[in-house]
Amino acid sequence: MKDPRFFVELFTYSILTFLIFLALERPFYRFFKDNEFVQKIRENAVDGKKAKLFRALHIKKQGTPTMAGVMIWLSVLIVVLLSRFLSFFGFIDQSLLQRGEVYLPLFTLVAVGILGAVDDWWNIKEIGKKKGIEAGPKFFFLTFFAVLSAIWFYFKLGYTEFNIPLVGTYDIGILMFPLIVFVILAASNAVNITDGLDGLAGGILVQNFAIFGAIAFVNEQFFLAIFCGLIMATLFAFLWFNVPPAKFFMGDTGSLSLGATLAIIASMTGTIAILPLTGFVFVFETLSVIIQLTSKKIFGRKVFLIAPIHHHFEKKGWSEPQIVMRFWIINGFVAVVAFILHLFDKQ
Amino acid sequence: MKDPRFFVELFTYSILTFLIFLALERPFYRFFKDNEFVQKIRENAVDGKKAKLFRALHIKKQGTPTMAGVMIWLSVLIVVLLSRFLSFFGFIDQSLLQRGEVYLPLFTLVAVGILGAVDDWWNIKEIGKKKGIEAGPKFFFLTFFAVLSAIWFYFKLGYTEFNIPLVGTYDIGILMFPLIVFVILAASNAVNITDGLDGLAGGILVQNFAIFGAIAFVNEQFFLAIFCGLIMATLFAFLWFNVPPAKFFMGDTGSLSLGATLAIIASMTGTIAILPLTGFVFVFETLSVIIQLTSKKIFGRKVFLIAPIHHHFEKKGWSEPQIVMRFWIINGFVAVVAFILHLFDKQ
Repeated sequence: MKDPRFFVELFTYSILTFLIFLALERPFYRFFKDNEFVQKIRENAVDGKKAKLFRALHIKKQGTPTMAGVMIWLSVLIVVLLSRFLSFFGFIDQSLLQRGEVYLPLFTLVAVGILGAVDDWWNIKEIGKKKGIEAGPKFFFLTFFAVLSAIWFYFKLGYTEFNIPLVGTYDIGILMFPLIVFVILAASNAVNITDGLDGLAGGILVQNFAIFGAIAFVNEQFFLAIFCGLIMATLFAFLWFNVPPAKFFMGDTGSLSLGATLAIIASMTGTIAILPLTGFVFVFETLSVIIQLTSKKIFGRKVFLIAPIHHHFEKKGWSEPQIVMRFWIINGFVAVVAFILHLFDKQ
Repeated sequence: MKDPRFFVELFTYSILTFLIFLALERPFYRFFKDNEFVQKIRENAVDGKKAKLFRALHIKKQGTPTMAGVMIWLSVLIVVLLSRFLSFFGFIDQSLLQRGEVYLPLFTLVAVGILGAVDDWWNIKEIGKKKGIEAGPKFFFLTFFAVLSAIWFYFKLGYTEFNIPLVGTYDIGILMFPLIVFVILAASNAVNITDGLDGLAGGILVQNFAIFGAIAFVNEQFFLAIFCGLIMATLFAFLWFNVPPAKFFMGDTGSLSLGATLAIIASMTGTIAILPLTGFVFVFETLSVIIQLTSKKIFGRKVFLIAPIHHHFEKKGWSEPQIVMRFWIINGFVAVVAFILHLFDKQ
């Protein structure tokens, strides 16, 4: 708490991000609607078969604008650039948001956001034979990005310490490299998988950025705490429109970029090990898909009515908001416990 | 972070409270159902006229068990007594939960909880001419309790300092006495007014106890942070069943007692001034009722379609979960800002 600027900047920049999202909302919504950047409900399941159950549940979502993730990363980008611009011309003092380290998560957010936007756009316009960037190229670009980040962390920043709360801190050396690649790929895809019900992924993401923001604050990585604040602010604004019935969805441009950014921030704060707890719902959503596919392949039968698991509960008769709220609640509980674990370990 | 017991106790006691709520849930639900401790939808508005709009919106809730607040305060009470019992017989070391100060919020929770339960019971059984403890006696008992607490704070503990973040700390002397009376009455009634949609009051309460728990932790009032943890744990368990469509409601025994306890904890942490921000939704719900009644009386017309304001939005066509989630989101945003203000002020 050495720097009073921290609170002033956190406060003003967060409010500003929130307002910028709101200002972007109407023109973007109109643009998405006019250009038919709207959700198509897929006809095939992940295994290529017809997804009848899924379509029956989700046909009502057809026509809802998607790609609202663009507004999320754009509002954060605008605020960081604005702060740089203002200080460059001497209107404000040097800002914490201009610490070089801010550009690592910002670059992730925007770069993966653009990748996701291309994917969304191809999806919507049905470019290519299969829809979306074919799994190949998408996975390739995401992996390329993850490897770049891991190189940065390992070779440039020299990160090798892996901390497990209650267990200890280990110097894992070069193993940090594959670990970071894995965490980025896992987090971005897990958020993407979770983003299937109105408000679900957004709510869990807010919880995660709140906790990693608090961790950054405890670590005295103030620039990072402010960055988390900006993302929280834009997510709060997004969620206002995204709760059921959603006015628009974040799309891959939102889920992939926010997941990757979360992984980067967990790496920067040295708390990769608690990410599976703060993102508990992301983990079990992903596990449900893995279990379902494995079981179908090996035993020839499904474990869940539909995977990811949120659709299973939908089919079981839970209402959409009921599932979303219960998933928020579970995740909130586990995430708070994880944060306490972290504090306990730090003491 | 002087005491490692803190984290161990916070962790084990919170999980225990959570499990005890779950264990109580089935027998209580059956008991409430069997004895018809169920919600009746009131026929009259606060001004005594027929509440047709309200009935039309809420008739579907008739027959849902209420008084689940009993499980909330009972599970907290059980854990505190259990910890006392175990340490009394030497099974565990002295616990932070046995600090004398814990009994102030615990007593509030249980005493106001019992008052609320009597009110709920009279409501349900339609004892007396009007339903519920007539406004007179209920208000009298609540005020009596608030005065007792204020006496305790002012005369016994010598609280006179009133802190306003960014402004300063003032010794307000004997004015602390009416202030605490007011805060207890206002908070308990405000939560009570807010508790009109599934999940609404519970979700905002979780946010509040999380923030005041964190404030207690920063203040090094560890016993109080643990107490907030217990309430959060039981509220998480409660919310699981209370999200729309609710399996049961908390009733006055929940809303009055949790509101009063929140006021006590804000007083104990010296942060009364941020309570209107952390409980932002409670405040504007209450204001909506005051504005509506005043406008009806003075100008003879309504400002909102129905007060409290959550029903106004319901009538406007927002779905119940949409209102609840949006109110959670707004409150979350303002509450986080309030917490940051507090930290800024403390630095």
